Amino acid sequence: MITIALPKGALLKDSIALLQRVGLDFSAFLDSSNRQLQICDPSNRAKALLVRNGDVPVYVEYGQAQLGVVGYDVLKEKGAKVAHLLDLGYGYCRMSLAVKNSSPYRSSRDLPAHCRIASKFIHCAREYFHQVDLPVEIVPLYGSVELGPITGMSEAIVDLVATGTTLRENGLQEIEVLFESTARLIANPLSYRLNQDGLGHYIDQLRQEIALAAAA
Amino acid sequence: MITIALPKGALLKDSIALLQRVGLDFSAFLDSSNRQLQICDPSNRAKALLVRNGDVPVYVEYGQAQLGVVGYDVLKEKGAKVAHLLDLGYGYCRMSLAVKNSSPYRSSRDLPAHCRIASKFIHCAREYFHQVDLPVEIVPLYGSVELGPITGMSEAIVDLVATGTTLRENGLQEIEVLFESTARLIANPLSYRLNQDGLGHYIDQLRQEIALAAAA
Repeated sequence: MITIALPKGALLKDSIALLQRVGLDFSAFLDSSNRQLQICDPSNRAKALLVRNGDVPVYVEYGQAQLGVVGYDVLKEKGAKVAHLLDLGYGYCRMSLAVKNSSPYRSSRDLPAHCRIASKFIHCAREYFHQVDLPVEIVPLYGSVELGPITGMSEAIVDLVATGTTLRENGLQEIEVLFESTARLIANPLSYRLNQDGLGHYIDQLRQEIALAAAA
Repeated sequence: MITIALPKGALLKDSIALLQRVGLDFSAFLDSSNRQLQICDPSNRAKALLVRNGDVPVYVEYGQAQLGVVGYDVLKEKGAKVAHLLDLGYGYCRMSLAVKNSSPYRSSRDLPAHCRIASKFIHCAREYFHQVDLPVEIVPLYGSVELGPITGMSEAIVDLVATGTTLRENGLQEIEVLFESTARLIANPLSYRLNQDGLGHYIDQLRQEIALAAAA
C-alpha cells in the first residue's frame, strides 16, 4: 500500500479532488469534524497522512510517505532530498519582495547594501539576494512579517503573496517577484526508482490527469 | 516611550494582567474583535507589539521592542542575543522526551545510538543528546510531532508538554524531562544598559510584583 502526504490548508481541497480522479478517495479529511491524521482510501490501496505544509517533504524524504503534494515555495525553502515529479497547476501564488507604500525603493536594485529583509523564507530570500549580488541581513520572522517594515525593523519583506490583500491592508506593495509557486507532486527518490507498490502507475495516472486538465 | 513585545497565545492573558499591575494597560489585545498588532497604553507611556511567540526575541534583539515576554523554551531554542532578566512564574510547561506506550525505552539511556528524534525544538533536542553523549538524528517536524513515532519515522519526540493530554490521546508517554519552562522577561541588552526611556523603573516594578506574588 502506498502512503501519500497531504498538506493541511490551502492546497488540501484541490489535492483531494485530483486524487479522486485517479480513484483514491481521501475526502474524509475535508469533513470538519475529522480529527484523524492518517486515513486509508476505502478501496484499501493507499493511505494518506495529513500534515503541515512544511512537513510534507520531511515525510517523503524519510520514506514514511512515498508520494507527497506540496507548494513549490516550501520545496524550495526546505531543500529536501525528494524527487520533484510534476507541476500540479493549482495553488498559484508568488514569492515577492514588498516595501511600504511610502518607501523610495521600487526594485531590489534600489535597496541599500546591508539593509534588513524580514522573511519566514530565509533560504529563498538569502539565495535571491545572493543572485542579485546585494549583501543584506535576513531577519527571520515567522508570523505577521508585515510588522517588519511597519515597525521600522526592516526595509522590506520577502513573503508569499496570493491575492495581495494582506499587503494592501498593511500599506505595503510588491516591487519584485522572486519566483512563482504552484502545488507539486514529489516522491521519495528510492521508492520512485524501485517503483515500490506500483507507485509508477499512480504517477502516470496523475500525469495524464494534469495533461487533460491543461488541455481543457 | 518604551515598546514591549507580547506573545500571542497561552502567555498573553497573564502577561497583560502583570503589566496592568505596574500601570500599563494593553487589555485591548484580549478583545476578540481586535485586529491591531500595535497598541499604545491609554496613558501613552508605552506601546505593545502583539507577535508570534518565536518572534518576540527577534523584536527585542533588534531593539524594535526594549522589553519582551517569552517562554523559556523559545528563548533557549532561538538563542537570541537578549538580556534575560526575570522568571515571571506563569506559563509552566516542560520540554520532554516521549515515546510510544508500546516502546521498550524508558529513558534516554535506553535509546539506541543513531535513532531518530522528531522535534520542532531542534536546537534544544540536539543540545540535550549532545550532553548525554548519544548521537541521534533530529527530524525537524513543525506540526503534529506525535506522528513521528506513530508512523514509525522516529523512535521518540522532544516536545513541550503542559497537561500531557495530547501525548495520552496519541498513545505516547513522557520518559524524561529535558528542562522546565515558564514565561521570562527579556530586554534589549543596549537599551537595558543605557536605561532608555526609564526602562529600569518598569523592570524594578515588575521585579517587585513578581516577588510579592511569590511571597503570597
